[in-house]
Amino acid sequence: MAANARFYAAFNTKDFAAMEALWARATPVACIHPGWNALEGREAVLESWQQILENPQQPKIVSGAESATVLGEAAVVVGRELVSGSPIATTNGFVLEEGEWRMFLHHASAVAALG
Amino acid sequence: MAANARFYAAFNTKDFAAMEALWARATPVACIHPGWNALEGREAVLESWQQILENPQQPKIVSGAESATVLGEAAVVVGRELVSGSPIATTNGFVLEEGEWRMFLHHASAVAALG
Repeated sequence: MAANARFYAAFNTKDFAAMEALWARATPVACIHPGWNALEGREAVLESWQQILENPQQPKIVSGAESATVLGEAAVVVGRELVSGSPIATTNGFVLEEGEWRMFLHHASAVAALG
Repeated sequence: MAANARFYAAFNTKDFAAMEALWARATPVACIHPGWNALEGREAVLESWQQILENPQQPKIVSGAESATVLGEAAVVVGRELVSGSPIATTNGFVLEEGEWRMFLHHASAVAALG
């Protein structure tokens, strides 16, 4: 949950260095932004974050309703986001690397109707 | 990968019993269908699958381009699906329970443009 909070803090402060530090080094990473195809590999994923964080039009994210499941050295947080008032459902995956929870997965998708 | 294949086999043969057997018992489960909000808990998730599998209009899924990451007793498969020709990006999560890989997470989202 702390790593998940660091993700949204990095996003909302447009702190690319913090975002870069958060993503896993040793574990293969993947990221699916809303409406995007899957990006795989650290380089492609971080390039997408750099573009997003550098975009002055990018609105902040309000995140909430998170539930975390820890499975040994992996953890998954399912949650919700609001971006400019639009609802998004998210899956964030974390892995223990060098004693730190690092992100290896972010999957965000638009919710067509609130359930 | 075998568990992931079982998921698509259960889907395409509309075999609810196989789908039910595939989902984890001891681990909290979550499922995000394309455009849906997150469903959490075995009951809500399986109810959604029952509705989907009972729907005679539900087209089959062509799945592919999968990559699996195993993190101890958890595994994540990022992949693609085609449903009636529409591209979907997916994250499927599995957990080892009683020596079996069981699904605890399915997140599928429409891809607006092929990347």
